[in-house]
Amino acid sequence: MRLSRYFLPVLKETPADAQIASHRLMLRAGMIRQQSAGIYSWLPLGYRVLRRIEQIVHEEQQRAGHIPLLMPTLQSADLWRESGRYDDYGEEMLRITDRHGRDMLYGPTNEEMITDIFRAHVTSYKDLPLTLYHIQWKFRDEIRPRFGVMRGREFLMKDGYNFDLTKEDALHAYNRHLVSYLRTYERMGLQAIPMRADSGPIGGDDTHEFLVLAETGESEVFYDSKVTDIRLGEREIDYDSHAECRAVMEEFTSLYARTDETHDEAVFNEIPEERRRSARGIEVGQIFYFGTKYSEPMGATVVTQSGERVPVHMGSHGIGVSRLLGALIEANHDENGIIWPEGVTPFHCGIVNLKQGDAEADAACEDLYKALKARGLEPLYDDREERAGAKFATMDLIGLPWRITVGPRGLKNGVVELTSRRTGESEELAPETAVARVAEIYAGL
Amino acid sequence: MRLSRYFLPVLKETPADAQIASHRLMLRAGMIRQQSAGIYSWLPLGYRVLRRIEQIVHEEQQRAGHIPLLMPTLQSADLWRESGRYDDYGEEMLRITDRHGRDMLYGPTNEEMITDIFRAHVTSYKDLPLTLYHIQWKFRDEIRPRFGVMRGREFLMKDGYNFDLTKEDALHAYNRHLVSYLRTYERMGLQAIPMRADSGPIGGDDTHEFLVLAETGESEVFYDSKVTDIRLGEREIDYDSHAECRAVMEEFTSLYARTDETHDEAVFNEIPEERRRSARGIEVGQIFYFGTKYSEPMGATVVTQSGERVPVHMGSHGIGVSRLLGALIEANHDENGIIWPEGVTPFHCGIVNLKQGDAEADAACEDLYKALKARGLEPLYDDREERAGAKFATMDLIGLPWRITVGPRGLKNGVVELTSRRTGESEELAPETAVARVAEIYAGL
Repeated sequence: MRLSRYFLPVLKETPADAQIASHRLMLRAGMIRQQSAGIYSWLPLGYRVLRRIEQIVHEEQQRAGHIPLLMPTLQSADLWRESGRYDDYGEEMLRITDRHGRDMLYGPTNEEMITDIFRAHVTSYKDLPLTLYHIQWKFRDEIRPRFGVMRGREFLMKDGYNFDLTKEDALHAYNRHLVSYLRTYERMGLQAIPMRADSGPIGGDDTHEFLVLAETGESEVFYDSKVTDIRLGEREIDYDSHAECRAVMEEFTSLYARTDETHDEAVFNEIPEERRRSARGIEVGQIFYFGTKYSEPMGATVVTQSGERVPVHMGSHGIGVSRLLGALIEANHDENGIIWPEGVTPFHCGIVNLKQGDAEADAACEDLYKALKARGLEPLYDDREERAGAKFATMDLIGLPWRITVGPRGLKNGVVELTSRRTGESEELAPETAVARVAEIYAGL
Repeated sequence: MRLSRYFLPVLKETPADAQIASHRLMLRAGMIRQQSAGIYSWLPLGYRVLRRIEQIVHEEQQRAGHIPLLMPTLQSADLWRESGRYDDYGEEMLRITDRHGRDMLYGPTNEEMITDIFRAHVTSYKDLPLTLYHIQWKFRDEIRPRFGVMRGREFLMKDGYNFDLTKEDALHAYNRHLVSYLRTYERMGLQAIPMRADSGPIGGDDTHEFLVLAETGESEVFYDSKVTDIRLGEREIDYDSHAECRAVMEEFTSLYARTDETHDEAVFNEIPEERRRSARGIEVGQIFYFGTKYSEPMGATVVTQSGERVPVHMGSHGIGVSRLLGALIEANHDENGIIWPEGVTPFHCGIVNLKQGDAEADAACEDLYKALKARGLEPLYDDREERAGAKFATMDLIGLPWRITVGPRGLKNGVVELTSRRTGESEELAPETAVARVAEIYAGL
């Protein structure tokens, strides 16, 4: 993309009403615009990151064998009356009446609707196991929306639902989701720690929240510091293997790590003192097993091999897709702006032309631009007639992990400068070497 | 995808309440499920086609230089009061009150919001031309939703908005959209004819609708039969060239082609009688130029080179993404089911194993499955223990354009059968030749 033809409305001033870094930086970098309280437009740069996160979530869900579909944003109140949640849900549910006077609502979650789909179409144990998911906009009418996209009212969530014949199979689905979530977050360059949590209005006994440690997090968390040393890394895990998924679950959840809702001071104090940590965290996902809580009242049953009709065992599993942008920025920024991890960056590499209009510099930038694109990369070329300082400030603010700087002086020596946003370190390289280096960095992602 | 692990709930019976072929076939093929009147879940197969259509729309929009963003589904009523449309829009607008008693609405279109984004961030003629678009769910509270996704209430639309300094530039944006829309529809294997139309509640003088001819279309249309002979084809068009885009516009719109809203019997009768056609059509897109209708009341202005402040010239341009599935099926089906054009098919090729459980047949199918995937294709392998007839019926119903049939008898002679869904013609080929043939078919798409 050439910046002269893009729409990147960066702000010079820090917005007064934004209290946390991610909210400030998303506004300053021209990523979002508030349209109403807790409702945002995703401007082009923000939209690009949102799509990259969505793409990673899709890929990891499908790698785990989960099947995508798409449920609508609006739901009939009748479905929620069946489960009993229509009255329970309270004021966070946005209730709507259509022109015929029918009660509708903007879905805050989809347990009822997916159970309805299941019961309409599945009748035999042979069709299990089954996990369906979607990535769709949700609405929760928060009384005080704040912190930008971290606690918005209209937000994008991946929610998935498993249907299994037995509790044991459903717990495997739970573990499989845990593994796939760990992989999802790690691909984004994010450490999210599964912590034992409270199930809230979804219901159920087993639930873990995934928390990113950050000073601005809304939840207080308590954990054994050893838990932060564990990584899934590159290991191959067979998602069909109950044993392999259970082993990962046990490895990641046997050390103490809980939110304040489930925190137990006595158990916490059994950890050696030097490993006890209390901190703040941002919740970026949650998994639940809740058995037959919905399948029983809603009649989602299958006929078993022996001819018996039984309700299916279910769980639901969510990733806060739009919220992840906030969490990623909270975990990756400095005083100059955002520092995107390579896995989610909106553009792979910036190109800064120090002397726009200089024939040689312009030609070198064009060549770099085309060479990066030819490698399947998406560069952002700052081809505006601006001072070098302004161009650097913009690049630092929007946080592309790599920048190639092109100027007449370097070109005389046949070099351009490749700079890491994270370390600030620069290297002078021949243009083709810089392109190869950038391509290599992204090759594994 | 292996069908044994997929969720494809095909129906044996024809749903009684579905009046048109596309609605019937989408229900029967397990593509959609109605959740409320005019509100659908997109089941896995339907969701795949929706995503393919969305992808083509994105690619062609970006090829034309248009920039994607994403506006929210819910909007503040205040924005619509500024343009005067809040009271005008009538009962099709779904009006919502949030917990604080604020008036909101589920956006049926986005002229107000995009104008708000523009005026907040753009102040100079230097930032023009600019075209922003998004693909987002919309809601129109139709009094009688019908024909499945063709006239639903919650529907997916691409809507784009151009901002230009002069009327001439805005008319170029209009023409550029016309060209990019033609290319978009042709890539989907669809002929959509631009017809002079009425501007309705969007406003403006210049507008064309894109219509797909189909007996079940809701609009009556009148045209010169020569208009159906024109194709954009493979020609290269420079989207920055006013002259090239205008030439295409003139070529496609100089022959008589109008909806009943603008039909003029006297002009129509000037066409030689043998070329006069009246038919029915499905509207799949519309482009508008409306000048300063929104920019003036909402204060969307820029400062010109000479320092003058002027309102920008705008237009808006829509493609009915979810409705396109219905139009595609209306134009591509037979008595056995859907016949997807290669450009939008949910899977590239089906594999039917005639004797599941036979070691040789199973191994041959696995090899084919892997070989197709290795070529970047997405096969659907029917690995269920079902009769051949049932497998063929499912493949015909869901309409994959190509099917490879594998059975013990063919394998003895070293061949499998490659069948075209459209022509029904089959050819016996060595498995590797069949794979190469399928790869070749999709190579240019």
